Amino acid sequence: MPELRKDYVTDTWVVFSTVRSKRPGDFRIHGKMTDPDRCPFCYGHEYMTPPEILAYRKEGPPNSSGWWIRCVPNAYPALQVEGEVHRRVTQLFHSVNGVGAHEVIIESPQHDAHLSGLSDFQMQEVVTAYKQRYLDLLRDKRLKYILIFKNHGERAGASISHPHSQLIATPIVPRRIMEEVNAVNRFNEATGGSCIYCEIVETELEEERRIVAENDSFIALSPYAARFPFETWILPKVHEMAFEDLTDAERTPFARMVKDVLGRLHAVLEDPPFNYYIHTVPCDRKEIRYHWHLEITPRLTELAGFERGTGFYINPVMPEDAAAILRGRVGAPEKAS
Amino acid sequence: MPELRKDYVTDTWVVFSTVRSKRPGDFRIHGKMTDPDRCPFCYGHEYMTPPEILAYRKEGPPNSSGWWIRCVPNAYPALQVEGEVHRRVTQLFHSVNGVGAHEVIIESPQHDAHLSGLSDFQMQEVVTAYKQRYLDLLRDKRLKYILIFKNHGERAGASISHPHSQLIATPIVPRRIMEEVNAVNRFNEATGGSCIYCEIVETELEEERRIVAENDSFIALSPYAARFPFETWILPKVHEMAFEDLTDAERTPFARMVKDVLGRLHAVLEDPPFNYYIHTVPCDRKEIRYHWHLEITPRLTELAGFERGTGFYINPVMPEDAAAILRGRVGAPEKAS
Repeated sequence: MPELRKDYVTDTWVVFSTVRSKRPGDFRIHGKMTDPDRCPFCYGHEYMTPPEILAYRKEGPPNSSGWWIRCVPNAYPALQVEGEVHRRVTQLFHSVNGVGAHEVIIESPQHDAHLSGLSDFQMQEVVTAYKQRYLDLLRDKRLKYILIFKNHGERAGASISHPHSQLIATPIVPRRIMEEVNAVNRFNEATGGSCIYCEIVETELEEERRIVAENDSFIALSPYAARFPFETWILPKVHEMAFEDLTDAERTPFARMVKDVLGRLHAVLEDPPFNYYIHTVPCDRKEIRYHWHLEITPRLTELAGFERGTGFYINPVMPEDAAAILRGRVGAPEKAS
Repeated sequence: MPELRKDYVTDTWVVFSTVRSKRPGDFRIHGKMTDPDRCPFCYGHEYMTPPEILAYRKEGPPNSSGWWIRCVPNAYPALQVEGEVHRRVTQLFHSVNGVGAHEVIIESPQHDAHLSGLSDFQMQEVVTAYKQRYLDLLRDKRLKYILIFKNHGERAGASISHPHSQLIATPIVPRRIMEEVNAVNRFNEATGGSCIYCEIVETELEEERRIVAENDSFIALSPYAARFPFETWILPKVHEMAFEDLTDAERTPFARMVKDVLGRLHAVLEDPPFNYYIHTVPCDRKEIRYHWHLEITPRLTELAGFERGTGFYINPVMPEDAAAILRGRVGAPEKAS
């Protein structure tokens, strides 16, 4: 059973998951699996994954080919589905056993697809699958938070190149989410009812220079204090707490905005490695205010001792410059030879 | 002038430093500089760095060869020495101009040296130089925190392989330090005067299984919630707020403990990339309690979307196992072929 432990001193939590071997030699970086003949996410290889949780296909039995979206449990889960949540707390040692969920959402049958190149229909189906998995897992009262995220490229932590997202549900609310929730609540009280994310949307639309793209329902922006070069956030323009409340009318503009921004990053940075993740409200919404959004963080720089030691980030690119480049208002950068 | 910006919502600070070019093509990973003929930290190349701030040499003028320790300003500083600190705060936008210091401490004239292989004398001189730079910069009242850190290996963010540490002094106290300081203060109040780090030292010495090494003045341990495989902390056994108060009597055991732990990591993990950094008390000690320590974090795993999205870490190695391996109580791991 995996175990979650809190740092002696700070609120930093660590998931200890020893599913993979822990011999030091095993930490070498492996080449990413690019061979479709051995890819567990390609047609005909459905037997290579645990049985599917959800799939979109016209016909045929579960775990056969013919699907266009397929969700399966992660074969090397960081957290385990079975069991009750137990906490152990002493003066210095604070742990929770690793009950949760760890799933994979295969975004396309096409081994070499890039999200920015998917059809509108296919990207909408990815979004629909995300929502369906959220709604299903929300019924499990042991889970306190559900994160959907994507690792693209080996440097971003992807071990399989076939396009897929992951879902991890945890038995405690992560600190980054709690920090945001607390700040949203504080701002709400300080302003007599305003949402800080609504304020960001409004102010950034006025200031313009950090806006990357906009459609009827969503904006994409380079945040004022972007931690990473070309970090980009996508936010719904109207106040909405939860991704999983996404309406049918919002599905198309959201899918298009994700494709649009990933396409800009792909073009400007030549298919950079990146992570994205959806920040939505915690499972238990009681007395909690929030405004969901998606954060895309390219992996162009290394975090080093200064960042680890301080929690600061160093970013060599001003967000205003990144936004101008992604908008296409400055000349395309020179192709690297 | 560099600029520090705070995230709209959370207490995350980002240093924007555009000293290096910001053309997207420039983010490609460069091979690390391994050629001693062009290394700015080798004898005879003193003219390639900014003029030295401090050097230990028997004779000869500044910026000549013959030194065994040499400190110079970073040629590409993240923060700038000149100027006053100005804060700008609006509802969403919070910035501080980038006044601070960014220095390099060259740890040996030998291009290929590894800290674990330095003589006791040389490692003591590294420690002495650290302390001397702290004490000098503490007199500058614009600086709120001074971090000394080391990046070893390309994957750990080192761009020059010649052994060196860095020092960055910032105009605000970093969030990780504030989290620790606040926790130390809370524990002190809750327990009527105890130090949480003293409690860690005492409890871990009793429990034994996470101890890596021990001498008269210091212990090295795998922390209970280690964020990274083989993360190791070195703590003074008696209560001491500040690294820069290190006594002459403690200098040798501290230097030996750093060498010892780095040597164990080098042997077990075959010269892994790593970062270390010293956590000491903030410059202004008024009403602040603390217990200094050094944290060593090997770079064996990639942080990916889950970690970025949550602030959680995933660690595949239990600290108890890492400590046993580093102590040498379990068989040496198989050599990777």
